[in-house]
Amino acid sequence: MKPLLNPAPRAHPDREAGAPVALPTRTVDIAADMGESFGVWTRGRDEEIAPYLTSAHIACGVHASDPGTLRRTIELLAGHGVAIGAHPGYPDLLGFGRRRMDMTPREIEDTVLYQVAVVKGMVEALGSRLQHVKPHGALYHAAEVDDLVAAAIVAATKRFVPPLAIVTTPHSRLFAQAAAAGAPAAREFFLDNAYKADGTLLSRRLPEAVLNDPEAMCRRAVEAVRAGRVAAVDGTMIEVRVDTICLHGDHEPSAVALPKLRVALEAAGVAVRPLGDFVRPPA
Amino acid sequence: MKPLLNPAPRAHPDREAGAPVALPTRTVDIAADMGESFGVWTRGRDEEIAPYLTSAHIACGVHASDPGTLRRTIELLAGHGVAIGAHPGYPDLLGFGRRRMDMTPREIEDTVLYQVAVVKGMVEALGSRLQHVKPHGALYHAAEVDDLVAAAIVAATKRFVPPLAIVTTPHSRLFAQAAAAGAPAAREFFLDNAYKADGTLLSRRLPEAVLNDPEAMCRRAVEAVRAGRVAAVDGTMIEVRVDTICLHGDHEPSAVALPKLRVALEAAGVAVRPLGDFVRPPA
Amino acid sequence: MKPLLNPAPRAHPDREAGAPVALPTRTVDIAADMGESFGVWTRGRDEEIAPYLTSAHIACGVHASDPGTLRRTIELLAGHGVAIGAHPGYPDLLGFGRRRMDMTPREIEDTVLYQVAVVKGMVEALGSRLQHVKPHGALYHAAEVDDLVAAAIVAATKRFVPPLAIVTTPHSRLFAQAAAAGAPAAREFFLDNAYKADGTLLSRRLPEAVLNDPEAMCRRAVEAVRAGRVAAVDGTMIEVRVDTICLHGDHEPSAVALPKLRVALEAAGVAVRPLGDFVRPPA
Amino acid sequence: MKPLLNPAPRAHPDREAGAPVALPTRTVDIAADMGESFGVWTRGRDEEIAPYLTSAHIACGVHASDPGTLRRTIELLAGHGVAIGAHPGYPDLLGFGRRRMDMTPREIEDTVLYQVAVVKGMVEALGSRLQHVKPHGALYHAAEVDDLVAAAIVAATKRFVPPLAIVTTPHSRLFAQAAAAGAPAAREFFLDNAYKADGTLLSRRLPEAVLNDPEAMCRRAVEAVRAGRVAAVDGTMIEVRVDTICLHGDHEPSAVALPKLRVALEAAGVAVRPLGDFVRPPA
Repeated sequence: MKPLLNPAPRAHPDREAGAPVALPTRTVDIAADMGESFGVWTRGRDEEIAPYLTSAHIACGVHASDPGTLRRTIELLAGHGVAIGAHPGYPDLLGFGRRRMDMTPREIEDTVLYQVAVVKGMVEALGSRLQHVKPHGALYHAAEVDDLVAAAIVAATKRFVPPLAIVTTPHSRLFAQAAAAGAPAAREFFLDNAYKADGTLLSRRLPEAVLNDPEAMCRRAVEAVRAGRVAAVDGTMIEVRVDTICLHGDHEPSAVALPKLRVALEAAGVAVRPLGDFVRPPA
Repeated sequence: MKPLLNPAPRAHPDREAGAPVALPTRTVDIAADMGESFGVWTRGRDEEIAPYLTSAHIACGVHASDPGTLRRTIELLAGHGVAIGAHPGYPDLLGFGRRRMDMTPREIEDTVLYQVAVVKGMVEALGSRLQHVKPHGALYHAAEVDDLVAAAIVAATKRFVPPLAIVTTPHSRLFAQAAAAGAPAAREFFLDNAYKADGTLLSRRLPEAVLNDPEAMCRRAVEAVRAGRVAAVDGTMIEVRVDTICLHGDHEPSAVALPKLRVALEAAGVAVRPLGDFVRPPA
Repeated sequence: MKPLLNPAPRAHPDREAGAPVALPTRTVDIAADMGESFGVWTRGRDEEIAPYLTSAHIACGVHASDPGTLRRTIELLAGHGVAIGAHPGYPDLLGFGRRRMDMTPREIEDTVLYQVAVVKGMVEALGSRLQHVKPHGALYHAAEVDDLVAAAIVAATKRFVPPLAIVTTPHSRLFAQAAAAGAPAAREFFLDNAYKADGTLLSRRLPEAVLNDPEAMCRRAVEAVRAGRVAAVDGTMIEVRVDTICLHGDHEPSAVALPKLRVALEAAGVAVRPLGDFVRPPA
Repeated sequence: MKPLLNPAPRAHPDREAGAPVALPTRTVDIAADMGESFGVWTRGRDEEIAPYLTSAHIACGVHASDPGTLRRTIELLAGHGVAIGAHPGYPDLLGFGRRRMDMTPREIEDTVLYQVAVVKGMVEALGSRLQHVKPHGALYHAAEVDDLVAAAIVAATKRFVPPLAIVTTPHSRLFAQAAAAGAPAAREFFLDNAYKADGTLLSRRLPEAVLNDPEAMCRRAVEAVRAGRVAAVDGTMIEVRVDTICLHGDHEPSAVALPKLRVALEAAGVAVRPLGDFVRPPA
């Protein structure tokens, strides 16, 4: 993401070479982080939002979740036809994976391998298949800026057959590393979070970072998907490419927006599908 | 196992229907528990014994092991052509899975599903395949006597495709439940542990439980495999059926016996193979 | 607790030797389990109920809680003048200490020592003092019926200076073991939980176990404290002795009853005080 | 520590104001990290080295240790009259506290408070008293260079009564913060680790960092204590101030050197005493 010099965004380079300039995206995924309870401690409103999603990112039992939560989450998602991704994080249950840890690339690769393995193994044992990998919390942010972290995540993910897509921000090191390794990668847009003019996300600790108007959220998301642009918090129009829209299911306005979002996207001619149906490795 | 009324043991009912009475077993597996380190804390002498095994039972990151230990253990075993089994235990790292926990059958099924999934996922990601499941420690013993525990382990194991063999003692509830569910099950014999006259193992806290003479261990194992019998601690001859021989790799005399064991078995006409090569589901 | 043969209960043997038969208790403590959050996962409504309590039982960072939760809970309670007790449980965070574990008496003594030590150390570092120890969940129930568990808890508690009271049910092995060891012990009554005719608690999984009428709860508690009796779920009147009333703060009707409870007790001539002010060791 | 411009070191400013220039230290403590086992996994040779120490730094059950290990370690040390310090680390059992974590100062203060509390509570329950606090691993190193980390450790330590000494390197931020807060602080010298010319330690991953000659180690330590100087790895003489000598008990040459060290120090006129006997807060 960068300030939008040319208001007519280019088509997605990797899969819409011949598409008209005005239609950068014709298909998008709607997803949320799920399965983040632990033992007696519940978190999120998974049952309420599952019917409206096409994909979900589920915790792997390390920074959150546990065997029972994983099984119930997979059953819930499979029951609604939602495609499942593994959401590995730093091995820090107490910190919910939100604290960066000084791990070696080898340690990161091993923990991602472990966490994706458990979700893949359970999803397949329960009759579904794993679609993708999205790093969680501090690992997500580390992979945006740190090539060694990004490469470790790609190396672990590439071990799995059939190939798993990687979900990240479009200008991250992780997106670049995935492309370099020939791995499919999906670009994530946040439904309920403001952007800065440089295309990065505003911290949700700032009140202005959190969007609260369901109607406005939906209009903004449709414009991001259709026109490839979004207004930053200071009004600057920035270029975006969107394969998957992420929302915070425990944020009330987002839960309200969710059922309207799909309707609005389809009304604008956008197909809503799991990202595995349309995200392809670089040619 | 029960006191041997008839000194000429019957042939294995499930795979040697036409075999002569005097040859109850022609093929056997040699295995050990492995991958039981955690973080900076190492345990066992995996590298030393791996070359002499046909199978290994590896901890899953719950009662022992961690992502790095799992990856290194899988690489070590794959490098020596040793077949890999998951060794799930109670979720009690501090107690090394040796303390029974009052878990519901659903909780046991979920934790076994989780633990087998992670090993299966990692083994496959690293280019091998998972062969079997053997419960660890207090879960192993609970599954010998408790039908609900045994059924939960079978239910979890049956979820995986292709089918995984279950390793347990021949007269356990787990062996019976596996048979009832049509799951392949392998009968385990302990190289370095004395038996009681009722066919159960003597607790290793008793000095007489632990065998220390490598030559005698090998002779005893060959007789158990070939003649289907072993002398209990009180001298009674008991009937045994052996698909897989387990040894404690951190017990020095067992490590000494190990290289001789395979030679002794082969000299007696016994083929030494991974259990997945010859253990079949009940007809 | 046992079926009430004599409707005029005896006076408390340990502190009201000369009291009239009709007034078995003149002082009582009101308490709740608190500090049961873990990391990002919150549990309970501690801030709402703290102002109405005289004591609280706080988790020690093993079956629940963590360093930050402990510090905040201690500050909250000290700010309201609520006396603090340690609430040690089985080392099973995933199971919230609700699953019995097959631990040796030595292991139980060590974990109780550890858990009480951390709360005592933190409470004193933050300028207060520790009042009592109450086992949590499955450890609470094990200590009601198992002499080895009860003795291990008493042995650990007796290590601390000045002496800490032990909170348990009046007919438990823990109460008997505390008395035998000369340790002060407080008898607990549950505000919002039905009793069986044998004086034990009905499992809260049964709908009839959970009381929902705040007014009736208060009347019942006043009668238990003043008259030493309570109606079991089948209508039988059973004898009770009450030093401390426990309520489930996350149960809405109990939170509603709480402010009324103290008023009702005081109107009936009962002083409401922290249990450390009046519970004494056996003479 | 810095390159030694003046070969005649100055006296310790804080406790030997009138001492002759040639005798910067007349009393020193000999200590080691201990109690670093976890569950079935043992580490170190605590029983072998305890008789020769005056102090020990013991893990608190977070990056290592557990309730049973803590109790046994405290009993072992108390039996040999060794003074006990708490050795808190990052909450990362898998990484043994060796990986820096991005914790807020508040989180660091809380975890240090928790970890010191548990050791203090257990030590006192077992009849001894806590002497000091020394951060472990990555937390030790973070506190050398990061003022926020150092201040958080001092803030937690200052909560305890009576005051606890802090052990760190002499030129660390932690030493400066302790002084600023009026907390007693002891300067640590490493018996078996080479120094760089800037006074910091060479990483033990480098072979030349690890000293292996017991006689030379003892001579070097005596010179450091008596003359206030030590040769860096490149031969530069650097100034040191030593209150406590730390050795790695699991390093064979250090275990060999240990009994000789005390003899050599005493022969050179140095008294060997627990640091709590002579380290005082800044005037």
